Amino acid sequence: MNLPSLFPPVVDEIIRRALAEDIASGDVTTEAIIPIGKKGEALLVARENLVVAGLPVFAAVFSTIDPGVKVEQLVKDGEWVVAGGVLARIRGEARVILSGERVALNFIQRMSGIATRTRAFVEAVPPGCTTKICDTRKTTPGLRVLERYAVRCGGGWNHRDHLGAGVLIKDNHIACVGSVREAIRRARAWAPHVMRIQCEVDSISQLVEAIEAGADGVLLDNFSDEDIQKAMEVAKGRVFVEVSGGITIERIPRIATMGVDVISIGSLTHSARAVDMGIDWLEGTKDA
Amino acid sequence: MNLPSLFPPVVDEIIRRALAEDIASGDVTTEAIIPIGKKGEALLVARENLVVAGLPVFAAVFSTIDPGVKVEQLVKDGEWVVAGGVLARIRGEARVILSGERVALNFIQRMSGIATRTRAFVEAVPPGCTTKICDTRKTTPGLRVLERYAVRCGGGWNHRDHLGAGVLIKDNHIACVGSVREAIRRARAWAPHVMRIQCEVDSISQLVEAIEAGADGVLLDNFSDEDIQKAMEVAKGRVFVEVSGGITIERIPRIATMGVDVISIGSLTHSARAVDMGIDWLEGTKDA
Amino acid sequence: MNLPSLFPPVVDEIIRRALAEDIASGDVTTEAIIPIGKKGEALLVARENLVVAGLPVFAAVFSTIDPGVKVEQLVKDGEWVVAGGVLARIRGEARVILSGERVALNFIQRMSGIATRTRAFVEAVPPGCTTKICDTRKTTPGLRVLERYAVRCGGGWNHRDHLGAGVLIKDNHIACVGSVREAIRRARAWAPHVMRIQCEVDSISQLVEAIEAGADGVLLDNFSDEDIQKAMEVAKGRVFVEVSGGITIERIPRIATMGVDVISIGSLTHSARAVDMGIDWLEGTKDA
Amino acid sequence: MNLPSLFPPVVDEIIRRALAEDIASGDVTTEAIIPIGKKGEALLVARENLVVAGLPVFAAVFSTIDPGVKVEQLVKDGEWVVAGGVLARIRGEARVILSGERVALNFIQRMSGIATRTRAFVEAVPPGCTTKICDTRKTTPGLRVLERYAVRCGGGWNHRDHLGAGVLIKDNHIACVGSVREAIRRARAWAPHVMRIQCEVDSISQLVEAIEAGADGVLLDNFSDEDIQKAMEVAKGRVFVEVSGGITIERIPRIATMGVDVISIGSLTHSARAVDMGIDWLEGTKDA
Amino acid sequence: MNLPSLFPPVVDEIIRRALAEDIASGDVTTEAIIPIGKKGEALLVARENLVVAGLPVFAAVFSTIDPGVKVEQLVKDGEWVVAGGVLARIRGEARVILSGERVALNFIQRMSGIATRTRAFVEAVPPGCTTKICDTRKTTPGLRVLERYAVRCGGGWNHRDHLGAGVLIKDNHIACVGSVREAIRRARAWAPHVMRIQCEVDSISQLVEAIEAGADGVLLDNFSDEDIQKAMEVAKGRVFVEVSGGITIERIPRIATMGVDVISIGSLTHSARAVDMGIDWLEGTKDA
Amino acid sequence: MNLPSLFPPVVDEIIRRALAEDIASGDVTTEAIIPIGKKGEALLVARENLVVAGLPVFAAVFSTIDPGVKVEQLVKDGEWVVAGGVLARIRGEARVILSGERVALNFIQRMSGIATRTRAFVEAVPPGCTTKICDTRKTTPGLRVLERYAVRCGGGWNHRDHLGAGVLIKDNHIACVGSVREAIRRARAWAPHVMRIQCEVDSISQLVEAIEAGADGVLLDNFSDEDIQKAMEVAKGRVFVEVSGGITIERIPRIATMGVDVISIGSLTHSARAVDMGIDWLEGTKDA
Repeated sequence: MNLPSLFPPVVDEIIRRALAEDIASGDVTTEAIIPIGKKGEALLVARENLVVAGLPVFAAVFSTIDPGVKVEQLVKDGEWVVAGGVLARIRGEARVILSGERVALNFIQRMSGIATRTRAFVEAVPPGCTTKICDTRKTTPGLRVLERYAVRCGGGWNHRDHLGAGVLIKDNHIACVGSVREAIRRARAWAPHVMRIQCEVDSISQLVEAIEAGADGVLLDNFSDEDIQKAMEVAKGRVFVEVSGGITIERIPRIATMGVDVISIGSLTHSARAVDMGIDWLEGTKDA
Repeated sequence: MNLPSLFPPVVDEIIRRALAEDIASGDVTTEAIIPIGKKGEALLVARENLVVAGLPVFAAVFSTIDPGVKVEQLVKDGEWVVAGGVLARIRGEARVILSGERVALNFIQRMSGIATRTRAFVEAVPPGCTTKICDTRKTTPGLRVLERYAVRCGGGWNHRDHLGAGVLIKDNHIACVGSVREAIRRARAWAPHVMRIQCEVDSISQLVEAIEAGADGVLLDNFSDEDIQKAMEVAKGRVFVEVSGGITIERIPRIATMGVDVISIGSLTHSARAVDMGIDWLEGTKDA
Repeated sequence: MNLPSLFPPVVDEIIRRALAEDIASGDVTTEAIIPIGKKGEALLVARENLVVAGLPVFAAVFSTIDPGVKVEQLVKDGEWVVAGGVLARIRGEARVILSGERVALNFIQRMSGIATRTRAFVEAVPPGCTTKICDTRKTTPGLRVLERYAVRCGGGWNHRDHLGAGVLIKDNHIACVGSVREAIRRARAWAPHVMRIQCEVDSISQLVEAIEAGADGVLLDNFSDEDIQKAMEVAKGRVFVEVSGGITIERIPRIATMGVDVISIGSLTHSARAVDMGIDWLEGTKDA
Repeated sequence: MNLPSLFPPVVDEIIRRALAEDIASGDVTTEAIIPIGKKGEALLVARENLVVAGLPVFAAVFSTIDPGVKVEQLVKDGEWVVAGGVLARIRGEARVILSGERVALNFIQRMSGIATRTRAFVEAVPPGCTTKICDTRKTTPGLRVLERYAVRCGGGWNHRDHLGAGVLIKDNHIACVGSVREAIRRARAWAPHVMRIQCEVDSISQLVEAIEAGADGVLLDNFSDEDIQKAMEVAKGRVFVEVSGGITIERIPRIATMGVDVISIGSLTHSARAVDMGIDWLEGTKDA
Repeated sequence: MNLPSLFPPVVDEIIRRALAEDIASGDVTTEAIIPIGKKGEALLVARENLVVAGLPVFAAVFSTIDPGVKVEQLVKDGEWVVAGGVLARIRGEARVILSGERVALNFIQRMSGIATRTRAFVEAVPPGCTTKICDTRKTTPGLRVLERYAVRCGGGWNHRDHLGAGVLIKDNHIACVGSVREAIRRARAWAPHVMRIQCEVDSISQLVEAIEAGADGVLLDNFSDEDIQKAMEVAKGRVFVEVSGGITIERIPRIATMGVDVISIGSLTHSARAVDMGIDWLEGTKDA
Repeated sequence: MNLPSLFPPVVDEIIRRALAEDIASGDVTTEAIIPIGKKGEALLVARENLVVAGLPVFAAVFSTIDPGVKVEQLVKDGEWVVAGGVLARIRGEARVILSGERVALNFIQRMSGIATRTRAFVEAVPPGCTTKICDTRKTTPGLRVLERYAVRCGGGWNHRDHLGAGVLIKDNHIACVGSVREAIRRARAWAPHVMRIQCEVDSISQLVEAIEAGADGVLLDNFSDEDIQKAMEVAKGRVFVEVSGGITIERIPRIATMGVDVISIGSLTHSARAVDMGIDWLEGTKDA
């Protein structure tokens, strides 16, 4: 499985913020109970079936606090793990393991939740269909790079990363400028040549207008299955087609079979449930 | 309704990061289509029933990009809004409204999702019960201050803000130090005098040990309803009791009726669904 | 003239860094000589013919130090100004004008230098040709957003903003993966659907391979005028064509006439000369 | 050759900003084409004669992205390299080499351009003259520390680093306070005792006034060769003399021969052309 | 001696700021005099009797500039060192030792000053008394984490870390809300359950009111010894008692003997004198 | 009184850090007790005689939290205020006044403590003497700009701001390079021409060597009064003389009378006692 790179400078900054939020002023409980110098060992365990995403982030949380804490990653991002499966082994200063536990879990539970949810949608695409399951910009503020990575771990696709990385003319652009045609004309006249021009449409007539105006692709916004079918008949072969809005997993097989290129789903990121994981302290490491 | 303060320096930094993530390198679509100087007006509309949380954050997203954009807040955080209700009116530079829309929505949809979910739990507490519905540290990395605020908007309670703001001895602390008694002794000997000593227990015998060791409070971790009932009989009047782990909304009435002080629920923040909202462009603001 | 937005949070951060570099520890000369409270007035004057770019940045330098200093912008970014022309009038606390002068000039002289150089290339494109003069990623580290803006002020075009905002397969990608065809196949299979696939080629045979592999566009790297002509005959109508490498202003008319879509020129940004400007203190503001 | 220190915390921050600008949201082309784990090797090659400056910065770009990438520096900053010369060898994760290439080149090409330009001026000073070629504060915002270092690599001198690191009374200070004499008096009365008092003058009469007022040094601003000659006769032995404004390389021998102490030249930094360099991928590292 | 953790990400940021303040633009003296590559060795020596605090910070200053500089810590934080005692040995690049010396000393002299002062107060508590000597929030802005650590090194106690880490109702809260009783009621109704409710009182009658209103603890503000005695008779066994305001070391034995739980002293941090230390260059490391 | 500028971007960052340290996660006491919207008014009062320094910082703490809170400054930095004197009136949101109080006081009490201590030294200089009382680089990490400002408020002088703002050859430089003469030679050959060359000496013979080697100034380190007298006879008229090390206020008159130029005193900043101030809540603002 090909995955995006997680550039250390980017991830480090996110981790530092999270640590600042949770332990900047110290962990009063752990400092009280655990002496400096005491070592520990613990396991990261799945408490339900899941697709794992974020193990390098989980590990980096501990090494950011203390480079002496080592995390052995026992599976790879993107793999299925069943309930009870061990994902990683953590060894080092006990204080650090105990203080970093919650932040590390908050990252990996959220990321794996996204990957797991994405995988479910991806597997709903019938064999033989080339339709891609794709995220949106409806990500958690500050965590987009991690959530896009998690979607890839789940087998999904990434949409444009941000507003500067692709042209997508939305309903409000059209409302503001007055017509699909004029919006497409202006976008073509301005956007870097490396970009396609994609336009959101909310009716078959807008779709026709977009195609005639020279759009490279369209986004069918909140179309019923019937309307998607009609749109595919109009569009086929002339523009790429993305479908978005009100997509449930039950609709995926039908829509995919129609041949749409991309189904984008905001809830992959904005409403994914965190999966259940825990850190189990190993026996032999109690006080002698 | 009393709410926490949202200190501008804290919120501003979160907003700047979110904007940097989404529009730092510009919004190629909007810049292509909308000329500088064109004004616009739009409404923030609820697309389902919800408890609103985050309107000041929503507004600050736009004013951070351009102080000239004004957001009139038509309801208050913590209020119920029914589907179709208008929450705010945005006026100003059209480019800014279009470019800031997604980030602003990402904040308020998530925060209102948390508030709405919290309200459901709060309303499940039977009349006359004083049990508080409380969040945990299972929040989104980087957004804790906003999510705790959203829980308060939903009528919920906040647990300790971070590891330095309260003592909570967890299972892994006990595993590491060897006994509940010793962990409590050390915590008492170290923690600032403004803090109570709370200890997580996973059995009645640990509960007894914690009480005898002088804990101020306990957290019953993953107890069944029957075991919570037994624990209340043991604990009553001597320590405050928090219940956590595996809490569903269906269990709330029964547990609350037993007289527990606090029910804390990670999913209030880690698995809340974003509620549906949209920004509707007003008619009269198209190009002349 | 349509221009990109200069989002205040982005520009502010750049300005704060520049000020920290030059006056964080104070301006010992000005503090010695000019008392707090003394007001001043000065003009920003062109000392050669130029295309202006960066007036809002120039103004923001002063207002970042002290919001009480006002800069009246007398021309607009993108306009021609002849030597001696007055671009702006600055009024306010004399200390601030004197301390901020160098940083403010450093920004606007560099940006206007880029705009002026770009304008020269743009004007070298013969009437009737639609070829665009375009920048590259060879910008000054930390100032890309300002330099791309300056290119637009000069009438030029912007290439992809950064590595995440467009696909451009370079010689080293091809060297690494072994063939143009395979590189294009992988890019198509991975890149967001909003992006075109552009491939750099250094020979006609690579050009043919790129077109057959389904590239949307090509970049002819360091082609002679003769080879560009041949390439256009091969490419015409099937891919968009960008030319780059060793471009001088003298070659522009000939290349543009061949119908290439884009000519990209690193030296617009990496080797532009700063244009000459100065700040003239107005007479009447000496000590009484 | 003695060189300034490049303190890692300072340089790291500059590099992180540059990387954030170019690859924070990922390198879509490289991630598509190059699998994680593939190794590569490449050479940094001079494509014209140049004085190299910035090799440690070039190397740090890659190690910031991934400490596993190693850059072997084959020459030293400050050395002449002829066209075709190899400056460094880069080995490691292929993705990192390809993604970091542009940022690393942007730094070293600019810095070496400054060093090369400075060297030309330095070599124009006739043997036996002790005149120093010196930079100014006309540096690129955010990069001053690197550009001053590059000037030293070229054999040049550094002026004060910023407004708090030296006293230089400029024309606008004098205009504001009314006289050279009073400006010098105030500076002497305020500035730390470790600083000399230098005053810019634009005429022989101002020069005389500055000397009489007790200046330690003067800056002859935009003086013709003839006027410099006259000034030297007035000043000799009593103040140090810096010449600036309108300095071309052709004027250097004549001015240096007159015995001025320092010639400062803004264009060393604000208008240096980036020198041509490239990264050549080595053969044996293609896909097996 | 149990000590708080000094989390590297937190301390690093403080050190980087301090270095930016002192050597960001370089150390002109050292760069002039000491060639790159020259090694050095030096000792950190106590010039008076002191309790050491901050050796890890002292060491981290040098390793932040250059990881190759090694600091061997010869004593431990919290230990007594007599005048002339050697605390650490520093080895590495001479430039780095000389440039980092002042910043490193500024940290450790201040922190050890606080520890030494705290120790004096702690030792004034008569044997058998359990009264704790405690800091306040009157710390140096930006250095709280280090100063609290230093207090622990001196054998002292830490109060709440910040305003979110404990409830302490102050005189101005009471003034604002109108009564001790109402302030306590509101605090109880809002504060997380992990927190005790502490209330500052300035009279016996307020003390009685606080106890009756259910406070967990009180702070006797600026009470005379006689009034403290009376308060202890009122309070004993029902609330914990903290004494603050106008505390001198001479009063400690008497107050401690009365059985107060905590004596908090702002001057531990806001008015501690820096202890005298120096860095002695070792003989054998002069130029050959 | 001439004072340095406190540039808002610099001061703001220091204030934001201090606020982040104290109230980032909220003020649980104030939020519990004081409802949003309640207004308050309070006075800043001197509780001992003092020289005030830092009123603009005190004010900026509140306006950073909430621009609606207004601080009326009733005296000016640098003025004497007697015990009981009112320095400022604060009006606005009661929550903000209560939450910002401690941070604001921490700044102004420290800064005024430095100013007051400096004033005592300055007034110990006999009339007619021109000796300046000067700070050192022994400042609190992160607060140098504020502490230098406070020294000026006390009538003192500032030494070089940091290592890049002046040449001062210290004992360890000399130890490292082997001789005063060689150290001075190298400094002269490298340092920007705007700087004087100052050299620390610890004996009369080193003083003679420094003068002969061409130093512009010397620092007599830890000289007795007798040795200072001898040094003045050697040095007079050829170099400026700074005295430092072991300076008490009692020695000032004698040393000043000898005609030394500068007496620098580390304890002005590293061991100044915070002066006593308080914020008094005004009567009429209690709950109605």
